[in-house]
Amino acid sequence: MNDLHHKFLESIDKLFQAKKFKSLKELLSTMEPADIAEIMGEKPPVERVFLFRLLAKDLAIEVFEFMDSTEIEEMLAHFSDSEVSEIMEEMSDDDRTALFDELPAKTVKKLLLRLSPDERKVANMLLNYSPSSAGRIMTPEYIDLKEEMTTEEAVGRIRRNARSKETIYTCFVVDTQRYLKGVVDLETLIMAEPHTLVGAVMDDPVYATTTTDQEEVAQVMSKYDLQAIPIVDTEKRLVGIITFDDVLDIIEEEATEDFERMAGIQPVEESYLDASVFTLARKRFMWLFICILTEAVTSVVLKRYSFALQSVVALTFFIPLLIGTGGNAGTQASTLVIRGLTLGDIEWEDIGKVIFREILTGILLGGALAIFGLGRAYMLHTGYGVALTVAFAIIAVVLLGNMAGTLLPFIAQMLHIDPAIMSGPFITTIVDVFGLIVYFEIARNILSLS
Amino acid sequence: MNDLHHKFLESIDKLFQAKKFKSLKELLSTMEPADIAEIMGEKPPVERVFLFRLLAKDLAIEVFEFMDSTEIEEMLAHFSDSEVSEIMEEMSDDDRTALFDELPAKTVKKLLLRLSPDERKVANMLLNYSPSSAGRIMTPEYIDLKEEMTTEEAVGRIRRNARSKETIYTCFVVDTQRYLKGVVDLETLIMAEPHTLVGAVMDDPVYATTTTDQEEVAQVMSKYDLQAIPIVDTEKRLVGIITFDDVLDIIEEEATEDFERMAGIQPVEESYLDASVFTLARKRFMWLFICILTEAVTSVVLKRYSFALQSVVALTFFIPLLIGTGGNAGTQASTLVIRGLTLGDIEWEDIGKVIFREILTGILLGGALAIFGLGRAYMLHTGYGVALTVAFAIIAVVLLGNMAGTLLPFIAQMLHIDPAIMSGPFITTIVDVFGLIVYFEIARNILSLS
Repeated sequence: MNDLHHKFLESIDKLFQAKKFKSLKELLSTMEPADIAEIMGEKPPVERVFLFRLLAKDLAIEVFEFMDSTEIEEMLAHFSDSEVSEIMEEMSDDDRTALFDELPAKTVKKLLLRLSPDERKVANMLLNYSPSSAGRIMTPEYIDLKEEMTTEEAVGRIRRNARSKETIYTCFVVDTQRYLKGVVDLETLIMAEPHTLVGAVMDDPVYATTTTDQEEVAQVMSKYDLQAIPIVDTEKRLVGIITFDDVLDIIEEEATEDFERMAGIQPVEESYLDASVFTLARKRFMWLFICILTEAVTSVVLKRYSFALQSVVALTFFIPLLIGTGGNAGTQASTLVIRGLTLGDIEWEDIGKVIFREILTGILLGGALAIFGLGRAYMLHTGYGVALTVAFAIIAVVLLGNMAGTLLPFIAQMLHIDPAIMSGPFITTIVDVFGLIVYFEIARNILSLS
Repeated sequence: MNDLHHKFLESIDKLFQAKKFKSLKELLSTMEPADIAEIMGEKPPVERVFLFRLLAKDLAIEVFEFMDSTEIEEMLAHFSDSEVSEIMEEMSDDDRTALFDELPAKTVKKLLLRLSPDERKVANMLLNYSPSSAGRIMTPEYIDLKEEMTTEEAVGRIRRNARSKETIYTCFVVDTQRYLKGVVDLETLIMAEPHTLVGAVMDDPVYATTTTDQEEVAQVMSKYDLQAIPIVDTEKRLVGIITFDDVLDIIEEEATEDFERMAGIQPVEESYLDASVFTLARKRFMWLFICILTEAVTSVVLKRYSFALQSVVALTFFIPLLIGTGGNAGTQASTLVIRGLTLGDIEWEDIGKVIFREILTGILLGGALAIFGLGRAYMLHTGYGVALTVAFAIIAVVLLGNMAGTLLPFIAQMLHIDPAIMSGPFITTIVDVFGLIVYFEIARNILSLS
């Protein structure tokens, strides 16, 4: 794929420099919109606008829909007013909302004024739904049919209206009040006898409402393998649809959010290189600060047990090893539990089972690692007592890590917070504090310190 | 959605206990295959088989394709030989391969023998491609057209062959040697004049080969918003297709793998509750062991600097806080870089830019946290020297964490290993070792220890 990309890029540059615009135009017309968008993204805005103007109108709109909002924003200044109006008018409704979501409010306001009254109404309607709700990402450009049409009439209607619709492969059956009655695939329609009624071949619809969260919409579409899902208002009137290509974007976006949350980063909207250093620092600061605040408790713990550290200096040598191991086990457990909760493999009722499994796993892993710890302490000539302390402490911190990693995501789930908020860094910190207390208590008992 | 699930479950149980099998059959026939599969999964195998037999044949196969392999395995023993043969024969090729991939080899061997010679050939062909390659997940059930057909003839061919095909919405144009010439959407075909030739309306195909990794296939399909992608052999002969519903599964699977790798867990194939405790412990052991081995170096470091710890005990108090903070910063940085590399937002050429950004972010974050460290040391009455040491060390470990989190994923990428392998636990451990050395060296200089 990348070879192809570089070859296209080279040809475009050559034709551009040689001013062979006719050949350039022909070359662009053979390319995929996604590829043109990618290549244009690497050009300065002025050249981008120039290339854009070489595209046939339909292709131009498609390319536009594949571009990043930052790239689009840079281009807008170079377009004429009528060009801007035309592009905004022709974009599909869902892509336009997505673009508006990322542009500055002032720009959006200006762009809205360039739309025809009809399109402006649609655009405003979509922008009124809350971010990341189904309403915000849907498009009203669907094919609607009536139950009393024949399949032949339905296919005719599809043919006449296909151009302006997001998909024609799933059609939606509504009554005169626009209540959603059913869905029917184009496949069913063209396979049916021409005089069959649509009402006889349509299926009961799986649908979502405008307020449903986009992540839930993606889950439902993935569960039922839907190519498109109807979105209804509170009265079950059809208002829009969401198609599978949006689902891919949602899933990727939600996964990125979860990755970030689990690493103690507040979700970053831009891609890494587009975000400013200040934005990145800001999104990372909160959890680092919460963790260092919590971690500060370890100083108190260590100060309190300094009598033990002073009488047996060797105890200090194992502090990073111990709390590190506990933290790592905690990160592993929390990742398994969070991912299980997100995918629905683990449910609230399973909490007992999960705790039981994590205790068993903790004993197995802690036991195996404890043998290593015992050997390690022996090698450092710490004496029998410290070695035994380290071995027991390893088992204890692995169990502790597993418990923190299990319970914290479940608690978040109970409080209706995204379990992914229980990030590895936070769990590691919690384990540090309690791990040290456990370590010194074990030491105190085994080494009879006081 | 869950309310509906419980209502269905209740109705099914009631009808089942009252032995009203005819009504039960009717109820099932109105339900979505995915819902039936979910409900059957909660029943004991014998009841599951009974419910399954109430389904109409087409629906039964669909339900089967939505079920978990463990549930299917339990059912197989209760089916008659002819039932097994029929189900295996009727399943779509890609779902059958996916099932075979998860069943024990012995069972697969038996099931293969139950297939007709033609289907067995297809099944064996697919099983011969390496796991997680495009060949392994594709299906040969596609609609093929010829360039010299008219669009009217093409639509006729689609109508006649639709039943046994995975999708009819994207069709594939091949020549007599089965070389892939183009793709054409059903939409294009039904919108074109009836006598237009397929060759005139088809597009250049975006395709993948049988050996392409499934993750790359998913990325390409997502990039171009493809509903189906053609898969060709090394000579560009069309051998199968992959459809969007498979892509959703791949993306979810790959994200889960990345989550697990980044937490230092080797990918677990089963879902959390299906995997045995021993499997989970085994998948987690390797990285815990590598980390504890690496972490053991910290004992050496601490032993070596014990002169410093003995002359200034207060230095010990900040060990967990320091290495914890460095590890947290490292986890954040590595997550941002790994995710960026996976999504293609960051490329190899960007390494200089990323390092620069992480140094800046590190200075910002480290500086802010250092102020906190300074205050904290002051509160613990450690004296001016230790407080200053802690403050400088915080900046240093945050920078260290950022660098480890940036460089290790890039190095993995350079070695053609999944960057996600550079897990948070591993990075945390590396930062622990180097963080301590840096801490004591700073202490030695500021406090003039020797």
